[in-house]
This record gives sequence, C-alpha cells and structure tokens, in this order.
Amino acid sequence: MIYPFFKKTTLIATSALLAAALHAQETADTRPNIILFMVDDMGWQDTSLPFGTEKTPLNERYHTPNMERLASQGRMFTQAYACAVSSPTRVSLMTGMNAARHRVTNWTLEKNKSTDRKSDVLKFPEWNVNGICEVPDVPYTYEVTSLPQILKNSGYHTIHCGKAHWGAIDTPGENPHHFGFEVNIAGHAGGGLASYLGEQNFGNRTDGKPSSLQAIPGLKDYWGKDIFATEALTLEAIKALDKARKLRQPFYLYMSHYAIHIPVDKDKRFFQKYRDAGLSEKEAGYASLIEGMDKSLGDLMDWLEKNKMDKNTVVIFMSDNGGLSSEPEWRDTPLHVHNAPLNSGKGSAYEGGIREPMIVKWPGKVKPGTRCNDYLIIEDFFPTILDMAQVEERKTKQPIDGVSFMPMLEGGSYEYNKRSLYWNFPNLWGNEGPGIGPTCTVRSGDWKLVYYYETGKKELFNITNDIGEKKDVSIQNANIVNDLSRDLGEYLRSVEAQRPSFKTTGKVCPWPDEV
Amino acid sequence: MIYPFFKKTTLIATSALLAAALHAQETADTRPNIILFMVDDMGWQDTSLPFGTEKTPLNERYHTPNMERLASQGRMFTQAYACAVSSPTRVSLMTGMNAARHRVTNWTLEKNKSTDRKSDVLKFPEWNVNGICEVPDVPYTYEVTSLPQILKNSGYHTIHCGKAHWGAIDTPGENPHHFGFEVNIAGHAGGGLASYLGEQNFGNRTDGKPSSLQAIPGLKDYWGKDIFATEALTLEAIKALDKARKLRQPFYLYMSHYAIHIPVDKDKRFFQKYRDAGLSEKEAGYASLIEGMDKSLGDLMDWLEKNKMDKNTVVIFMSDNGGLSSEPEWRDTPLHVHNAPLNSGKGSAYEGGIREPMIVKWPGKVKPGTRCNDYLIIEDFFPTILDMAQVEERKTKQPIDGVSFMPMLEGGSYEYNKRSLYWNFPNLWGNEGPGIGPTCTVRSGDWKLVYYYETGKKELFNITNDIGEKKDVSIQNANIVNDLSRDLGEYLRSVEAQRPSFKTTGKVCPWPDEV
Repeated sequence: MIYPFFKKTTLIATSALLAAALHAQETADTRPNIILFMVDDMGWQDTSLPFGTEKTPLNERYHTPNMERLASQGRMFTQAYACAVSSPTRVSLMTGMNAARHRVTNWTLEKNKSTDRKSDVLKFPEWNVNGICEVPDVPYTYEVTSLPQILKNSGYHTIHCGKAHWGAIDTPGENPHHFGFEVNIAGHAGGGLASYLGEQNFGNRTDGKPSSLQAIPGLKDYWGKDIFATEALTLEAIKALDKARKLRQPFYLYMSHYAIHIPVDKDKRFFQKYRDAGLSEKEAGYASLIEGMDKSLGDLMDWLEKNKMDKNTVVIFMSDNGGLSSEPEWRDTPLHVHNAPLNSGKGSAYEGGIREPMIVKWPGKVKPGTRCNDYLIIEDFFPTILDMAQVEERKTKQPIDGVSFMPMLEGGSYEYNKRSLYWNFPNLWGNEGPGIGPTCTVRSGDWKLVYYYETGKKELFNITNDIGEKKDVSIQNANIVNDLSRDLGEYLRSVEAQRPSFKTTGKVCPWPDEV
Repeated sequence: MIYPFFKKTTLIATSALLAAALHAQETADTRPNIILFMVDDMGWQDTSLPFGTEKTPLNERYHTPNMERLASQGRMFTQAYACAVSSPTRVSLMTGMNAARHRVTNWTLEKNKSTDRKSDVLKFPEWNVNGICEVPDVPYTYEVTSLPQILKNSGYHTIHCGKAHWGAIDTPGENPHHFGFEVNIAGHAGGGLASYLGEQNFGNRTDGKPSSLQAIPGLKDYWGKDIFATEALTLEAIKALDKARKLRQPFYLYMSHYAIHIPVDKDKRFFQKYRDAGLSEKEAGYASLIEGMDKSLGDLMDWLEKNKMDKNTVVIFMSDNGGLSSEPEWRDTPLHVHNAPLNSGKGSAYEGGIREPMIVKWPGKVKPGTRCNDYLIIEDFFPTILDMAQVEERKTKQPIDGVSFMPMLEGGSYEYNKRSLYWNFPNLWGNEGPGIGPTCTVRSGDWKLVYYYETGKKELFNITNDIGEKKDVSIQNANIVNDLSRDLGEYLRSVEAQRPSFKTTGKVCPWPDEV
C-alpha cells in the first residue's frame, strides 16, 4: 500500500496523544509582551492629550482618542526627550548610547554621504554617516549589540513594522533583520516616505522599482489600492501579532510609523472633518496624519483586548523628535510655532525639537491615569526595556549611557532630575529656525544651556519657569552658565564627542567650557 | 533659505572626503564566502557525474554539466551520507547533532502532529514533531543554537533561499529568520511544494492565500508568469548576492532548492530533449527537474566568476536524502531501482536512501578534480562550515556529534573510516520498499548493519563489495553482527535515542544488542 505524501490521514497518528501533554508547557515564558509605538516627527502638542499643565489650542485642534485611552490606563511622561532629528534618536534607542558617543548625529540615507547642509563657515566632522551595524570594520558606522538582538537572544519574538532608519543604503545596518528582528515589515535605510498612498504604490513604480530612495518597501499587496500607509502597516502588524500569538513566545513589536513625517498627504478617513472645523488644506492634512496614527494605536489596543493579552503587554508611546515647524511647503505660516507653547520644532535644540509625547501602559505595574514630570531621554529606553523583559544577559559591544526609568514607572520617589542630560549636534540640518544649527546642549534640573559651535554663543533657560525658551537668562546667571558649560564640556570630552571646525583657520570649535 | 528634505545637493558635502579614506578598510574581513547548494530528494545517480567507480546508465541519462564543472574544480565525496528523509537531515545540518539525539526523526509539517504512517503493530515514540527552535519551552522541539545564528554572530551575512523544513507551522522554527538568517527567500515549515509553475502561482490562489500547506511562499513577483520555481529562486538568490557584495561582509548562502522534490512538473527548458532521447513523460520530467537545478548551480558559479568572488568562495554541493523511488505516480516502474546501483531510495536505510552526491570546491584549499572515498555524515557539515568560516566562538545549547571533515578536504591522510556512523528512524514513513521501515543502522568500515525494530531482524552488508546491498551476510558473520549491534545499541542509549513499542504488549522494542 502506498501513501501519497502530505495526505491528511498520515498526520493524525499521535496528535490526540500529544495534545494532552501540551497544555501545561505552553505558557512557560510569562514575561510581558512589549509594544513600542514610535511615531515619526510628532510634536509634543500634536494630540488632544495635554502634556502641559493645561489644554492648549493645539490640544483642542487635534483628535487622538486612543492616546487619551492609553493615558487613562497608564502614565504620561511630560518631560521625555529625544534628539532633534531621527537617526540619532533611533540609534540611541537601539543601543543605549548618547548620540555624542555613537556619532550618528544627523540623519542617514546614502552610503558614505553626509546629509549635512553646506556651511560657508564650518566644516563638519566625519560623523557616522553609515549609521550602526552589528559587524566589524564597516566604515563610518558604530558596531553595536542592538536591543532587538538581545531581546531575540533572550527568547522574545521580535517584530519590526514601519520605519527603521539605522543605517545607510548598502550597509549592513539598512536592514532590521540584521539587528535580530525576526519580522521586518517595510523597514529599510530610508527615514522618510515618498507617499502615504496605496494608489501611488507608496512611491514605487508599477514595474516594481522604487521611484525614490524614500519609497516604502514591502507593502506590495496594497499597491494600487485606496489605502493609507498607516493603515496598511497596522494591518500587517496585526497579521504579525496573530502569528506571534501562535508562537507563544513573548513578543517585542517595534511599531514604528512613517506617520507623521512629510509629505502631508491627506488621510481621507479624517481629512474633511478638520477642513469642516476651519483648518487649511495643509493643516487639515497634518491633523489627518495624526488621527490616522492614533487609530492604529487603538487598533493594536483592541487586538490586545480581543486576544486577552492586554494584561500582560506593556505599551509604550513615543515620538522620535519634535514636530516639523520650519517648512512652509507643508505647514502654515508663521513658522516655528507649531509646537506651542514650545519654541521651534524638529531639528532644534529647543524644547520644540526634542520634547516628546510619551505614555507607558503596563497593567499591574504602572498606575493608570498618572503623570510623571521627571525627565528622561531616549537612550534610557534601552536598559528600561531590557528590565521590562527581565533580561539578565545583556553583554553589549557598546557602553550604555542610558539609565533605566523603571523607578519612574513604579511611581516611587526618585531623584531623577539630579542627573544631567546631554545632546550633541555638530552638524547642520536642512532647515533654519530658532535653536537650529550646530549646537551642544545640557539639561540639569530646571536649567538648560545651549551652546552654538559657530558663534560661541550660550543661552540659558529656566525650563520650569520658561518652557517656551523665550528669555535667555545667561547674563544674569554667569555661575550657572559656567557650571553647566563645564558639565557639558566634561561629558562631551569623556565620550569623545565630535565638533565642527572653522574653514578659515582649520581649527576645531572650542568646547563650551573653553569660551 | 530653506532646504527641502532629501535634496541631492545636501548630500554631497563630505562624500569626496570620505571616499578617499574608505578603500583600505572595506575588505577587512577576508574570510571565505560559503555557498551550500542543497538539493532536495536528489539521488546519488541523478547526475551525469559518476560518483561510483564507473559511468552508469543513469549517469548517461541525465545532463548536469555544471556539477561536472564544479567537480573539475573541486573534490567529489563518494560516501557522503544524510538521513533517509528531509527534516532529520536538515536539522542535523543546522545543529551538528545526530538525528538519534535531536529526535526530529521524521518529516515535520503541522504543529503537534506526527507524520508517522499508522501501524497495526507498533506505536511510535513522541518524537520532536515540531522540529527545532532557538527558544525554550516549545513543546516537541529541541532548543538549539543554529549554524546560521553562529555565522551571523561572527559577522557573516546569512541568506536562506528555498526550502527550510526545520519546524512545524506556527512554531518558532518554521521561519528561517528565527535562526539568524538575515534574508529569507521562500522558506517556511513546508518540506515539499505544491507546484513548480509560476503559471500556477507555485500553489497559491490568486487572492494571495495558499491553496495547500506546501504552496511556496515569497515568490509573488513571479506569479502568473512562465517561470519554473528553480529559476525564480535562482534569480532571487542572485539579487541577494548582489546586495551581499555591497555589504562587504563574507556571506553564507544556503541555496536550498525545492527541486527535485515531487511533483514532477516539466521544466520546459529541458523536458523535450529527454523525450527526444526516449524517456517517458514521467522520467523526462524528472530529468528536466535535475537539469534545471544544475543550471541554477551554473548561474551561481557564473555570478561568482563575473564578480571575481570565485577565488574566495567555498561551494558545497549536497542532497538531503536519496532519490524518490517508491512512488508509481511519479516514477516509472519497476520501483526501487532509480538509484541503481544503489538499492531502494528516499526513506530507506539502504544506500539508495542515504548516500548523496557531494562536491566541495574551495580554490587554494581543495585540489581540483579529486575524489575522496572516506565516509562522512550530514552532522559533520556543522563543525566543518564553522571551521571554514574560522569561527572560534561556537558555544551551543546542544552537544555536537558531527566531526569536521576539513582533513578530508585538504586531502591529507586521515583515518576517517575508523569511526562508526549511526542512524535512528523509530518511525514509519509514507511509502513502502526495501529498507523502508522503523530501523536503526550503523556503518563501520566496510560494514553496515540494519536492525528492524518491528521484527528484530538484522541485515549485514559489506558495502565495499556489495554497494547494492543485495547479499545479507549476517549469518556468515555472527561476530561482526554482534560487535556492530553492541556498538549501535551503546551509541543509541548514550544519546537517549527513541524506539517504537509494541501495541499488543506496550513494551518498547529491544535495542539491537538485546536480541
């Protein structure tokens, strides 16, 4: 008698037998699932959820019911910081290093090409234009052990969905799979997107070739369809979660939306509502990007509840830099006010460039409906997420600058604001505006010092009293300026930070405590 | 002045500067690239290249010019062994363990379901029906550290193309990405394929859903086109190699063809030639599968030469089990002669089931045009490939049974045939034929003992004198039978091998040295 291959009847011999033995074993790894919901270019006020002390006109303008829902179940962080542009933030998240150390200080895209805007005055350093990677000897990269790699090694199922932006095209860091992500949906070297529209194949030509370096890869099933990228990514993420549920490993989902990066395409599901409310075409489009992103958050929360996994899943909401406020092609004028009461926006050392909307929901651990006003910074996510995942084996190639904010989650007293936070941006970003330029910055307690490499100028703000950074009080507080300058200079030297140099003399710009 | 994002002119600031500094660094990792070209279900005689002492009628029938080309540049191994079915072989390759130890002794497909054919007499053990994985506490799996994971960790760029077959559907082992492969082209839980034909979407429905558990995933760009799966996989592999070349890491390409597994679809590029030569429809189809696979080998060799990477690339050719010879739907009758002079085929403990065509080309290391008649077995690939890759850090969760065959590559004197090789198959495969059934087997020097769990029968063959295993000489050589039975029994107990049991008594079948 011959049995054809794959015939159903050959497969049932011991299945009933096995089934009985399985139940007890299948939930052995009870560590929490973790969803890091990372939004791109979302400002601190791009939400109906007030992160400031009162509801602002921008909070009235936008509708983010699912962020409100998440906040009601978790803890808001009102002083959560990132870098002023994308790659530095995302590299710090992946590595636990401050950008001054990892030297991916501006945004990355093409191999061996700097994205620095040209300056007549300054020459910019040879920063890591190729980003990070996990292999040695790749020029202009920092070799690291990444967060998802460690999570994967510890038994997590690791899912990347959306924007990656960790390494230049044709370098090992361009691909999330090279960092231990087991699933990669639409992630590559690009940090922006050519189009949100399925009708436009998200920027790909119909012959399958990208029309731009920023065409979204990997969403071919949605090409030619009436669907927004935010929704397509969400549908794909949910497919990956459906699979993750079957694998019965704890999962780490890095849900990294391309939204709300330019282009400000209209998310038709929400656009007209904002027009009806009186917003301009541009600003109604921007609001629709936000609400589409918020719907995705809600869809994931619904999935968790439907699958009874909400109780054992941490959801972290974060953005990678401030809202874009310097670009008249995409935002209404006047510019630099789109993150009010914060000054300026993406690319700036001011709060508008670096302060982010952040929420953490963790049933049983984080008290619902609470706020934390202590500050933290993006590299702190690395040790914190490893703490959440109970990972003990966390040997890394790079030193870790971040500090776990687990105590802040648990709400106990914690003197967090006694440490300083540091930024270094020895680069020149594409646009101009307040606080935008080659700078280094320190935040310490209430105070913030910004040092401009080109001019040697220093600005001092009392962030607690002057969140809008309208009033430079450096003249009145020479001692504080000196203390912070020394603090910043010492830190930057300790991590071998880079600086620009002057074209005329060839001399490197002074450290902040040298002027 | 406002600079739009992604504007070309912003990207050139330091590129010329950087370019000069890069050249010296870019080739730092000079370890060899490795291509493991693994064919599915290919018999020892399914080639025009004679692995026996003389050219056989089957060698005359088939055309594999690229295997001949590879052999002329490398070393043929005439006694290379695998297991008799796919998953055990592939798991041994991935882990360095003998199948008796890893217990993935039959082929895997669905979660918690055994593929054992039912027996009236025997109950089969609870083998690892879910395959292997890299995470703990997954029922019916062996938790391992896999070959590609170690290669990736050491700095190799790891590419999977084609058949995986390491873990059941909805378990972590179903997906090559979970084993450290950075690229996965068309690999999943399935070990067969629904169709070779692009016109049939390789077994997928036009709505995107698979029509069968064995539909090939991941080749959507070729759906509806006049292309054979073997060619589509080759084109995709070459795309991955083009990318690998840019990454400038050494690469490991596991080129794992679905060919020449059933269904015996006609590869139109080659089919008619074999009909014209007088072969039947079935056998001409089979020959066309082989030549299509051989063309793929040639295309990869061409790519290496064109890119001047042939000198620093190891190419290993191997098959995972013997040629299918028990299936009248797909092969001409009489059955069990399709690997002649070897007896039987896939699924059998006889040479036809386990002896494979193997070639290694490694310029500068392996002398071209040579043959090695020492034996080796599939788990030896694991330590050998790590030796090739100069990997020193190879800590694994599993013990390693395989032995590196580097000395056999280098052609020095090596007393390889003094060790024994072992097989354990406490299962019942789908088809019937000579040597097919629940068996354990030992090869030692010239001798081979096959023990049948159900009947207690033992067969002894002198492989050197009787490659066709026509003459059981157990009666005449009682001492050898006893020695080999003890050798085999001791080994199986030492690795805690599984055995079937008798349904009537509930008693486990005796070890070979107990009868």
